[in-house]
Amino acid sequence: MSNNINIVLVNTSHPGNIGSTARAMKTMGLNKLSLVNPKYFPSEQATAQAVGCSDILNDALLSSSLTNAISDSQLVVGFSARSRKSNIPSLSMSELMNLLKKYKNNKISIVFGNEQSGLTNNELLMCNYIVSIPTDDSYTSLNLSAAVQIFSYEYFMSNQSNSSNILDKSEKLAPTLSKKHLIDEFISIMHSLEMISIKNRNSIIQNIHIIFNKTNFTENEVNLYLGIITKIKKAIKK
Amino acid sequence: MSNNINIVLVNTSHPGNIGSTARAMKTMGLNKLSLVNPKYFPSEQATAQAVGCSDILNDALLSSSLTNAISDSQLVVGFSARSRKSNIPSLSMSELMNLLKKYKNNKISIVFGNEQSGLTNNELLMCNYIVSIPTDDSYTSLNLSAAVQIFSYEYFMSNQSNSSNILDKSEKLAPTLSKKHLIDEFISIMHSLEMISIKNRNSIIQNIHIIFNKTNFTENEVNLYLGIITKIKKAIKK
Repeated sequence: MSNNINIVLVNTSHPGNIGSTARAMKTMGLNKLSLVNPKYFPSEQATAQAVGCSDILNDALLSSSLTNAISDSQLVVGFSARSRKSNIPSLSMSELMNLLKKYKNNKISIVFGNEQSGLTNNELLMCNYIVSIPTDDSYTSLNLSAAVQIFSYEYFMSNQSNSSNILDKSEKLAPTLSKKHLIDEFISIMHSLEMISIKNRNSIIQNIHIIFNKTNFTENEVNLYLGIITKIKKAIKK
Repeated sequence: MSNNINIVLVNTSHPGNIGSTARAMKTMGLNKLSLVNPKYFPSEQATAQAVGCSDILNDALLSSSLTNAISDSQLVVGFSARSRKSNIPSLSMSELMNLLKKYKNNKISIVFGNEQSGLTNNELLMCNYIVSIPTDDSYTSLNLSAAVQIFSYEYFMSNQSNSSNILDKSEKLAPTLSKKHLIDEFISIMHSLEMISIKNRNSIIQNIHIIFNKTNFTENEVNLYLGIITKIKKAIKK
């Protein structure tokens, strides 16, 4: 099951966490792992923690950037501590599970950041949604592989339960690469129109990402939108 | 919250797992840890894994037997791999959460066995219920602290949700020590009556444990029962 779910670890510091993540995944039937700039990999510590899961480590995809790791994903969900303030749409775990059922025919990346610092703001901007695992207020320091274990367990459980109330005609979304192209084109138009200043640059680019990412575009919709943007660009240059 | 929940680790081999268990607990607001015959404790590895949780390790209770560790518990739940066959009543995770709400005014032990072998049959016989965390059939090897993390997360989440549909008049159960006394007295009567042979000994004692443990006795009920047994004993000796 679940070969549409890709677990993505970004900038992982401790190789033991990569091994225990593989184990957490495999107990719950997940097997696709992507590693973005791990500090040490391959590593003896990772292998030692991944008892019986060397297949997942051997098949893990290494990427130099999150953009590359998620380029063919159609839905990207970032896990982030709840303290982080952000305008990116956030989901509860059960809302996420409903979303994953709805889009089960799509390639989906579930992204976890560095152990200390989590996902950066730029990395979060590549996500369609963020999810925070609730923790006790007095101690929120969830271990990386423990977070992956909780996600994987919830996902496994949600697939065990009777899902007859979920429509089976799962929508097919556009891959991240297409959506990124659309966003870039859109921002380039705003530049052309001198709508982006040094002062507002960061916040406006952030808002554009959020708006586009929360729209669950299909491929056809992206193409339609790109066609419109192309026309706008030509019109501006006149 | 949750100072009625005691996490009990039995015969833990790897001290790192004790540390990561403390961390798993604390993220979800649990802080009472009991260690039955840990192979190494205190240990540098445990401390290293318990980032910011040294309070839990410092306050952990050490016991030489599971019987001692759970003596004042009023409800004992063992976690065990699903492959194990047993007549002890088993609960799903959500059934366990309902039970924990119902008996929230009681001292409750949640027991996890050795990393390799889990809980022994004798240890399972001290449990009122067993719970198995579902895993993928092809790989069931859940790490010890990952199992504690999943339980703790479920428990935390069940306390977050609105529990208005659960009655607040939580029943007060008898402690394990009283129930053990009752079971011992009952078995001694069966011995007196020569109902226990070398051939049936194991299975009959097991069944008695299961029957009594699945009865959620209150203290008054145990006392009543003990009174009856005392009368039976006297009657037999005549």
